[in-house]
Amino acid sequence: MAERIWDKFLTDRDKAVFAAAGYGARAGFGKKPALLIIDVNYNFCGDRPEPILDSIKQWRNSCGEDAWDALPHIRSLIDVCRDKGIPVLYSTGTGREDGWDRGGWAWKNARTDEDVAPPAPRESARDGNDIMDEIAPGPKDIVIRKLKPSVFYGTNLMGYLNDLGADSLICVGTTTSGCVRATVLDAFSLNLRVSLVEEGCFDRSQASHAINLCDMNAKYADVISIDEALDYLRGINDAEYNLPSGTPVKG
Amino acid sequence: MAERIWDKFLTDRDKAVFAAAGYGARAGFGKKPALLIIDVNYNFCGDRPEPILDSIKQWRNSCGEDAWDALPHIRSLIDVCRDKGIPVLYSTGTGREDGWDRGGWAWKNARTDEDVAPPAPRESARDGNDIMDEIAPGPKDIVIRKLKPSVFYGTNLMGYLNDLGADSLICVGTTTSGCVRATVLDAFSLNLRVSLVEEGCFDRSQASHAINLCDMNAKYADVISIDEALDYLRGINDAEYNLPSGTPVKG
Amino acid sequence: MAERIWDKFLTDRDKAVFAAAGYGARAGFGKKPALLIIDVNYNFCGDRPEPILDSIKQWRNSCGEDAWDALPHIRSLIDVCRDKGIPVLYSTGTGREDGWDRGGWAWKNARTDEDVAPPAPRESARDGNDIMDEIAPGPKDIVIRKLKPSVFYGTNLMGYLNDLGADSLICVGTTTSGCVRATVLDAFSLNLRVSLVEEGCFDRSQASHAINLCDMNAKYADVISIDEALDYLRGINDAEYNLPSGTPVKG
Amino acid sequence: MAERIWDKFLTDRDKAVFAAAGYGARAGFGKKPALLIIDVNYNFCGDRPEPILDSIKQWRNSCGEDAWDALPHIRSLIDVCRDKGIPVLYSTGTGREDGWDRGGWAWKNARTDEDVAPPAPRESARDGNDIMDEIAPGPKDIVIRKLKPSVFYGTNLMGYLNDLGADSLICVGTTTSGCVRATVLDAFSLNLRVSLVEEGCFDRSQASHAINLCDMNAKYADVISIDEALDYLRGINDAEYNLPSGTPVKG
Repeated sequence: MAERIWDKFLTDRDKAVFAAAGYGARAGFGKKPALLIIDVNYNFCGDRPEPILDSIKQWRNSCGEDAWDALPHIRSLIDVCRDKGIPVLYSTGTGREDGWDRGGWAWKNARTDEDVAPPAPRESARDGNDIMDEIAPGPKDIVIRKLKPSVFYGTNLMGYLNDLGADSLICVGTTTSGCVRATVLDAFSLNLRVSLVEEGCFDRSQASHAINLCDMNAKYADVISIDEALDYLRGINDAEYNLPSGTPVKG
Repeated sequence: MAERIWDKFLTDRDKAVFAAAGYGARAGFGKKPALLIIDVNYNFCGDRPEPILDSIKQWRNSCGEDAWDALPHIRSLIDVCRDKGIPVLYSTGTGREDGWDRGGWAWKNARTDEDVAPPAPRESARDGNDIMDEIAPGPKDIVIRKLKPSVFYGTNLMGYLNDLGADSLICVGTTTSGCVRATVLDAFSLNLRVSLVEEGCFDRSQASHAINLCDMNAKYADVISIDEALDYLRGINDAEYNLPSGTPVKG
Repeated sequence: MAERIWDKFLTDRDKAVFAAAGYGARAGFGKKPALLIIDVNYNFCGDRPEPILDSIKQWRNSCGEDAWDALPHIRSLIDVCRDKGIPVLYSTGTGREDGWDRGGWAWKNARTDEDVAPPAPRESARDGNDIMDEIAPGPKDIVIRKLKPSVFYGTNLMGYLNDLGADSLICVGTTTSGCVRATVLDAFSLNLRVSLVEEGCFDRSQASHAINLCDMNAKYADVISIDEALDYLRGINDAEYNLPSGTPVKG
Repeated sequence: MAERIWDKFLTDRDKAVFAAAGYGARAGFGKKPALLIIDVNYNFCGDRPEPILDSIKQWRNSCGEDAWDALPHIRSLIDVCRDKGIPVLYSTGTGREDGWDRGGWAWKNARTDEDVAPPAPRESARDGNDIMDEIAPGPKDIVIRKLKPSVFYGTNLMGYLNDLGADSLICVGTTTSGCVRATVLDAFSLNLRVSLVEEGCFDRSQASHAINLCDMNAKYADVISIDEALDYLRGINDAEYNLPSGTPVKG
């Protein structure tokens, strides 16, 4: 098998153990997937492609250039899904203006206050929770606002999947070691098949990115390439979903 | 700050990013902790201390000697908690005899069938889900059976903590990158303070162990030493909990 | 429309309001149902058909003869489902011998202690949580042990439905105003279609039975007759489910 | 005991059964309550006090005059809580402009389309999900937007209670048989003590209101009077909560 991104972070013993323990088998796809794009907003990408250590001066959660490298791949997945009538869901953050509902997030980060009070006006004047323009949600897409890592936690995601008639997830987004990992875990616990598209996932930490992909691929999900994901989605025909109409009925 | 176990797995860029991004602050303890011992059973320890690559021949999920190194530390935490009247909770696995409820676990592992049909009789005749004799639950302790990684998922753990009157968790157990990580995530999402005792956690993969501790310490929990944990627990006085009586009322 | 069981409990104003408010439309069936039999055990039926006020002397939660009237209807649903390969799930209670995990149940009932210590030996020597012999689970059926009213709460039911490939529920059992109501609510919140079979549901309180059926039919589920349910189930062909094998693989 | 509102809806057998079965004991208060005001918005109250059958012409979910009778009682609870520093939480609805996320609500109601497209412009131009002016949230209060009956479902309510340091709920709002019942059920399952203030709860159906109070008082919560609730809250001193600051920190 070709080398994986996590191989260089594993010890020799780790490689022997993973080989012997049986983990990392292929789970396979479902029949009616939904695409889930996790937290790809200005907070995690910054407002321009620049090296991560520059980007995090203004955007403390930024993953820097790796985020911008992922955007075209995510865009290509969205395009195929919209074309095929496959549901496209996004998550992003939300919060009170006084920051109270940050809860545990505030306990572990010395820069939490910046989330609600940027240190200086940003040229782009972007709200950090806005989803990136490059992959902006369309009228039939579904945007889920959340406070915690997993897109399932404190949201209606499982009910949405039931109502859509989706049986599995294709996931991309950020951070691999944060909200992606948490969401994949909950999907696994719900017995939903998950494929993670490697080129569409990113993180601020290179080691965390690689090892979390390794952990998820070992136990919870299939880490696949963008080409394999696109081939799979293009091959889906006649799947019936209960998609949103996208047409406001108000007024 | 002293070197941490994950430092040698991080890239130089990672170290710079973690320092700049503000993660890894100390969350601190709660006022009324409960001790949670995650999946420390024969499946994950094997039935004797032996090198992991030997142990996993019989016990495919075994973490080998690292598990046995953790047992005395876990024992010391249990002893203090029982002495102080602090709740002690354990989790372990369960399952149907036909293996159907393995769900997603079966999809990702080539040796899943061994869980329900060991390849050969084991000398110890131990059920893999039995909690280790060295740290066996007592009559006032609480054992939670579960099917999925997080001890919160598909269980009554949150309700138990409410009924106990506990406001925070001290966690140990295995695997760091599996059930420990998943449980810590859910506790974080529920705004519960969590301290992970480093010497009491173990994993089959050295890189996964280190990086998952790093991720959790950065964002979700405090990774602390056994000495600090024991000092904290010994200092708890007059905390009132609604503990089980431990006295069967049946018959 | 024919008179419904709840009509005689409603006020005249209530009838006018329900008619005007639009509630009570027919939601309809799903395509791949599962049968869920809620808490039909000795605790809620007693060990023989006798008037409820006699039965509750020994079985404080008993619904008396109404339970026994429901049993043949439940049996007929089970038979069709097994014949068609439609999943059959049961729930029943569980608990510690010291009664600690009763939690809130203990707060609201003056006879809670009897759950763990029957006032006198029962002739039948039945465990109250045993599912009734008349509808005993088979090897391919799924039994869910729970502590709280909803079969979804603190269990893996949603994950089981995902793994089975079921998209909707046919529910029967007890009590209509307790565990049935709670389970239907959670199914509704998860956007699962639910049909309640009226002849298969029972309660200790006649008013609660009728009004809870009314509430559920108004907002959350379709309350249908046994004949309609049987017709629907008999018409299901070629639905593919991932059923348990029922064959122990152990040892 | 004084007559309860549900007595006249119960059959004679029901009264005998409830008396014999032990249900309806007093659970008692917690030590650190939070006040939860469920869905008291224009959808459920209408925009003026008028008979329910008039009100539901414009507001299909309206409970009519009973809602307006409850408002002063709810107001008095809010005033005491704010004065004492006891947390005040509200829930109300939310939804997409195309109505897709109504999910199961749309299946059971023939007038669902009106939720997103009122049949005629309303004089008051009120959004149905606005909380009533008479009890408007203040800056330190917490408003939870939800799609499903229970305020716990698909929200962060349990995490909020943990972060606040609250151990129990005082509940009021609407409808008694809908969102109030669902929320009380989840609180019960989480082993949280709940008191329902009778004068502060209302429903569109008189029978459903009475019988749901009966069911909840029997099994899940204490149904108490406004006077008892106010006395209890006034007696709370020195309870420490982590309340929101109410002061926006944004730019």
